[in-house]
Amino acid sequence: MVAVPSLFSLRHLLVLSLALNVSLILRALYHESGEGNKWWFCFKKKMMADAESWLAISSTPSLHNSTREKVINLDHGDPTMYERFWRQMGDKTTITIPGWQSMSYLSDVSKICWFLEPEFATEVVRLHRVVGNAVTEGRHIVVGTGSSQLILAALYALSSPHAAEPISVVSAAPYYSSYPSMADYQKSGLYQWAGDAENFDKEGPYIELVTSPNNPDGYRRKSMVNRSQGLLIHDLAYYWPQYTPISSPSDHDLTLFTASKSTGHAGMRIGWALVKDKEVAKKMTKFIELNTIGVSKDSQLRAAKVLKAVSESCEQENHQNGESFFKYSYNLMAQRWKQLREVVDAGDMFTLPQFSPAFCTFFGKETEPQPAFMWLKCVDVEDCETFLRGHKILTRSGRQFGASPKYI
Amino acid sequence: MVAVPSLFSLRHLLVLSLALNVSLILRALYHESGEGNKWWFCFKKKMMADAESWLAISSTPSLHNSTREKVINLDHGDPTMYERFWRQMGDKTTITIPGWQSMSYLSDVSKICWFLEPEFATEVVRLHRVVGNAVTEGRHIVVGTGSSQLILAALYALSSPHAAEPISVVSAAPYYSSYPSMADYQKSGLYQWAGDAENFDKEGPYIELVTSPNNPDGYRRKSMVNRSQGLLIHDLAYYWPQYTPISSPSDHDLTLFTASKSTGHAGMRIGWALVKDKEVAKKMTKFIELNTIGVSKDSQLRAAKVLKAVSESCEQENHQNGESFFKYSYNLMAQRWKQLREVVDAGDMFTLPQFSPAFCTFFGKETEPQPAFMWLKCVDVEDCETFLRGHKILTRSGRQFGASPKYI
Repeated sequence: MVAVPSLFSLRHLLVLSLALNVSLILRALYHESGEGNKWWFCFKKKMMADAESWLAISSTPSLHNSTREKVINLDHGDPTMYERFWRQMGDKTTITIPGWQSMSYLSDVSKICWFLEPEFATEVVRLHRVVGNAVTEGRHIVVGTGSSQLILAALYALSSPHAAEPISVVSAAPYYSSYPSMADYQKSGLYQWAGDAENFDKEGPYIELVTSPNNPDGYRRKSMVNRSQGLLIHDLAYYWPQYTPISSPSDHDLTLFTASKSTGHAGMRIGWALVKDKEVAKKMTKFIELNTIGVSKDSQLRAAKVLKAVSESCEQENHQNGESFFKYSYNLMAQRWKQLREVVDAGDMFTLPQFSPAFCTFFGKETEPQPAFMWLKCVDVEDCETFLRGHKILTRSGRQFGASPKYI
Repeated sequence: MVAVPSLFSLRHLLVLSLALNVSLILRALYHESGEGNKWWFCFKKKMMADAESWLAISSTPSLHNSTREKVINLDHGDPTMYERFWRQMGDKTTITIPGWQSMSYLSDVSKICWFLEPEFATEVVRLHRVVGNAVTEGRHIVVGTGSSQLILAALYALSSPHAAEPISVVSAAPYYSSYPSMADYQKSGLYQWAGDAENFDKEGPYIELVTSPNNPDGYRRKSMVNRSQGLLIHDLAYYWPQYTPISSPSDHDLTLFTASKSTGHAGMRIGWALVKDKEVAKKMTKFIELNTIGVSKDSQLRAAKVLKAVSESCEQENHQNGESFFKYSYNLMAQRWKQLREVVDAGDMFTLPQFSPAFCTFFGKETEPQPAFMWLKCVDVEDCETFLRGHKILTRSGRQFGASPKYI
């Protein structure tokens, strides 16, 4: 059994403050001086305290629970960094649901996705129009319990129950480290993980997961296997202005988004798919029926309110004093990446991905990618994860992403 | 692809008003008189209007959507019948969630089920204590997106990834008609539907789903395959005082409950499992991680409030004027079953299951089972579903429950 953390943060926002912190710690470790030692001691003490709340769900409870040994766990992520913005919004996104409301299984029986709340669907369309990151015309919206459920629903919908063998599922390395276990944990006869898309040379149909910007390295991605029988799932969880320049509205057959990455509301467990083909949308809906008989109405209603507030914050920005959600979150990410690069560049142990700026249609200016993850390379160490574990810093090895262990 | 309705109501409360209605209609059809005809015409007209809202999710949209032909769809269920009670409760179960709350993935990292909200867990334990229908001591609570997800999580947890072949999954006929498709839709190599538990004679390990009271027929159930290598999942969705006499607290290895059946809140998609074995609870949690990375916090918080109100309504009943939730729902079911039996008994076309009364520890008196479903038998017709379809009444054939087509 894979332990909790090996899955947990894989596709979540790695708490960038901790990412920054570890860099500072590493810098301290390798640039020790009289002054540095003192600073390092205080800093480490603070970081240990910050990180302590994460320890209990670590895969190695004996490491820290029984002995109370202090470690810093960067193998987890939780997108709570936008909480301050939502506090500033006050009651605007407060949801009130009376006990007698939303009792039915059904939401809108005129839609293929009969458990999709109309208010939520409306706000999804509106937000994509405001941000300009996805075409929604001619698409069926399928709501899911987070985008994880939608990835599984898409694998189910794109595979055939009558095929002679499971369809291959690929993604270009480094890929989201949960993809292999998500594809294989049920030992499904419908689909099967087949590894790195770049090395995939099997004939016949396949499903390619295209994650753009990519988790973990933050680069923009296109399909890697350019063949006729490929079925594509575009996982665009991070295609929002705070993480990457918006170049044009995405326009694919099957595209996934999620509230946890766009607005930071991971606890709602709400994702959505934009699906061109009616039969695929039907099969995805069927999957969710068999899996969970729909998706929490409470969270859909709450998500509708949150997405509406995001759209309004963008529309009203020029007329009011308030700052749009994306301006807030962009600035927050920019500040963290600035600090992160400063500490990494100050030493020669580690490198970070380098990005080129591009024009962002949303901000109307050039911006630079600011991924939600730190894809760190150890320059002179072969196994970066083991090395850092020796310094009581838990990370996820590049191996789990189908990449070199030099990375974490 | 199995169409929407074949799954949909299988394990949900069949709207008993519609069940009653169809009986009245059937009575009218076969006891036509001058007065009856007039009554029948008015009644059918009303029923058609009532049923119309259900039509759009039928498997045969051409039947009613394009031609707007009127049918009565009893193949669906939706537990909205307790709505009036919850309206009477006013603001007591109203939930208010600010936009900045419940953003994290995590709930209580000290628990195996790290996405379980502590408030919800507390109210689950309290309600079972108040009702006396389940032992919670020494159990791990695993929350699920409805009990459907927990059934799948349990199949995953009880099967072995290293087994030579998928473990057999059985249940005694008539069984919940979704079990076969839930077990098989992923073509899992871990588990496989093996049909009626009474005819199961394969050697080796197996999983038996024990549904008690049973969906669809309402009878109390025990394990049917009495062998040493059996792993049992007790689906006790209907083991609540309004549906069946509570004889003693259930005390099994793995027991499932759901809000949709106990309180009628299907739209919340909240179920819970009481699990004795720590490793099983861990594997179920792992399944939900890989499937949906947790369960909506909003709905868990709302469910906590609803369960709390149910417990308080029971505890305060003797001191205040208000009626407990179970007294209300018991009386509602009793009234509907009385009417249902009256119309069925007035003719000789159909029969209903007969139950013996038993002492209910919750009410402190003898009560009679009042299932959430109508398990109707056609006396002289071999294929009851086809027969009723001819009269524009959609039902689910006994065949889908592993039983005779004389039943619907």
